[in-house]
Amino acid sequence: MGTNTAARFDVVEYMDRMGRKARAVSSDIARLGPDVKNRALECIAQSIEKGADTILAENALDMSAARRNNLKSSLVDRLMLDESRIAATVQGCRQVAGLKDPVGEMTEPVRRPSGIEISKMRVPLGVVGIIYESRPNVTVDAAVLCFKSGNACILRGGSEAIHSNLALARCMKAGLEDAGLDPDCIQVVETTDRTAVDCLITMDEHVDIIVPRGGKGLIERISKHATVPVIKHLDGICHVYIDSEADVEKAIRVAYNAKARRYGICGAMETLLVADDIAPDVLPELCRQYRDKGIELRGCGRARQLVDGMAPATDEDWATEYLDAILSIRVVEGMNQAIEHIEAYGSGHTDSIITENPQRQREFASRVDSSSVMINASTQFADGFEYGLGAEIGISTDKLHVRGPVGLEGLTSQKYVVRGDGAIRP
Amino acid sequence: MGTNTAARFDVVEYMDRMGRKARAVSSDIARLGPDVKNRALECIAQSIEKGADTILAENALDMSAARRNNLKSSLVDRLMLDESRIAATVQGCRQVAGLKDPVGEMTEPVRRPSGIEISKMRVPLGVVGIIYESRPNVTVDAAVLCFKSGNACILRGGSEAIHSNLALARCMKAGLEDAGLDPDCIQVVETTDRTAVDCLITMDEHVDIIVPRGGKGLIERISKHATVPVIKHLDGICHVYIDSEADVEKAIRVAYNAKARRYGICGAMETLLVADDIAPDVLPELCRQYRDKGIELRGCGRARQLVDGMAPATDEDWATEYLDAILSIRVVEGMNQAIEHIEAYGSGHTDSIITENPQRQREFASRVDSSSVMINASTQFADGFEYGLGAEIGISTDKLHVRGPVGLEGLTSQKYVVRGDGAIRP
Repeated sequence: MGTNTAARFDVVEYMDRMGRKARAVSSDIARLGPDVKNRALECIAQSIEKGADTILAENALDMSAARRNNLKSSLVDRLMLDESRIAATVQGCRQVAGLKDPVGEMTEPVRRPSGIEISKMRVPLGVVGIIYESRPNVTVDAAVLCFKSGNACILRGGSEAIHSNLALARCMKAGLEDAGLDPDCIQVVETTDRTAVDCLITMDEHVDIIVPRGGKGLIERISKHATVPVIKHLDGICHVYIDSEADVEKAIRVAYNAKARRYGICGAMETLLVADDIAPDVLPELCRQYRDKGIELRGCGRARQLVDGMAPATDEDWATEYLDAILSIRVVEGMNQAIEHIEAYGSGHTDSIITENPQRQREFASRVDSSSVMINASTQFADGFEYGLGAEIGISTDKLHVRGPVGLEGLTSQKYVVRGDGAIRP
Repeated sequence: MGTNTAARFDVVEYMDRMGRKARAVSSDIARLGPDVKNRALECIAQSIEKGADTILAENALDMSAARRNNLKSSLVDRLMLDESRIAATVQGCRQVAGLKDPVGEMTEPVRRPSGIEISKMRVPLGVVGIIYESRPNVTVDAAVLCFKSGNACILRGGSEAIHSNLALARCMKAGLEDAGLDPDCIQVVETTDRTAVDCLITMDEHVDIIVPRGGKGLIERISKHATVPVIKHLDGICHVYIDSEADVEKAIRVAYNAKARRYGICGAMETLLVADDIAPDVLPELCRQYRDKGIELRGCGRARQLVDGMAPATDEDWATEYLDAILSIRVVEGMNQAIEHIEAYGSGHTDSIITENPQRQREFASRVDSSSVMINASTQFADGFEYGLGAEIGISTDKLHVRGPVGLEGLTSQKYVVRGDGAIRP
């Protein structure tokens, strides 16, 4: 579609229709029992399996366009689908079918002196909008999480993956129809016009929540302009603090894993804080390991005294999410200074303390205001699967509604159910 | 203060300082144990008791200004403090001291195959901004709820109550000091310049949530312009649906109470829906009772056939929160049409079904998308005290974070605490 005024008007209308359809269908999905939903998820899985060849052919179109447009190789890799990636997506559908359905869950009723009984019922949010980049498998991962939690969804992927996304959408819709359900339970935006995003994030009447998945630029843009609430994290500037009472062997193991296991995930450590007392026992060996792995180190003055050839870290380093083979290191006086550093530079994502001192474990856990606080564990654990949520639609560093990895429950809300037997308020 | 540019600049600076102070003190309050907080609440209660004469003198200033400015008598009544209202406020502090402290509460840890243990810890939100009208006792009610839930607060009351609010604030601050705590835990905006509100609702960096308390105009204005998340309800267009399988005696009792007990509260019924089958058994007697009480009735065609002299209800009536001695009545075919009516005109606040049929009870409870759904109970029960929350900072008709009456727990969030023993992610 073009971007002249007439076409823009069409996009607005198109998105409005989509929003209305989603809202209309949402009350039907909300009422589906777990068996019906799980059967539909199996139909979706089978439909994707059957459609694999078509999906791969459509993906090939996106891939050749990407090469023509000289897309970065990391983006091309994310864009690429092959049989094993499709198989993983299909398996994902079946795993979500296996998860416990949160919808309809009731808390124990509490009887009040007035005679009424109060309980809470878990219900879907309604309509979820997902905005994402490159990776076409997000189309299915996100859609099935929304569906299982009883929500209608509207998905808007990157323009570079449009053929793949639409092919996956057709398979999912066919699966829903096989299960006798309305294919509009899952809708994918068919235009690559950016106006569609502007509409989606401001359709308060039709959309209950937006989940952006992708780079910081995307998420910042969406958070800034959205009037619909957004579940998001902007940065994952994660810290490991090695306390003076840490076990040296554990400290080295955890701090190495927190950085070196994978650089590009939001739970990767970006700054290492080490108590002065223990720094000489920890840093030389740990830094040797980092360097063997090819990680560039940038340190404060004291760190550079302890380890030769380290570049100086600037204020900007403390505030940077590298997502890369770079680590900043600061030697601190003790836990208080570590917490102050985390308050000043952290992003409220995931921060870990390594210490054997139970008092400091407790204090760190209660004082550090992050979505996940860890004790003697690697920040790389910050993930819905690792936490036992079964799957994850995103991670939230906001404090309202949901915090940390977000699974099915984060896509629901609770309402009060009050039962009387002709009860009147005096 | 004036409203010229220089003064406005001052207000912006003033509010920014206030925000910074609140943010700074919030991490200290977050760490206070229940004993310390409860002792401080007792100090606040005593300080208000001791200061009663001064509070009444300051209130007299507001009252005479109100009379000079010809304020509506209902507003003057809300503004008025006397010994019994102060005593009630003091008692409120002590009741909040008696409530269970949600902060620090941990869920049961779950051990994962990787060896880590996952639990959640309940923590304060941080800084709460309260914006309210006329009633000076809100100053104390809201402040002590924020304090008990470990939050710093910034309170902005109506200009007509400024003397009363500042006198109450001085007492609370003195109480905090008596308890050895920072008086900035509770801050009251000292200027009546409206710019202060604009600042408060857009200080995302310093304020975590806004709770507006007052009329619909205030709440609409704030929701529209706030960038900080808002806990709110705009309308309470509450319905009672009397099903064909209702017990007639219970139906009349509940429907009468839902309207006639109090007109001005958000949980008051505004529209009565009655199944056609049962309407002739219910409406004549029920309408006789309403009219004895002086309630004006407006009905659909069928309702007007059954009860003489009823004015016709328009589409606007179905969409109006009267908060007054007026009721609209519609006869519907059955539950489906009742739910459609509620979907079309309701505000997601509180809706009740009267029926003995358990299947319809369940279906109504799950299909009606309101913050409280009631079965054989009066909508007037929608209230934090009645629900056992002990107190209420407001009612939310939004679905995110918190829904229905909001007590201490709604002013908190949960973070993940992950414990390992040197655990690394494979």
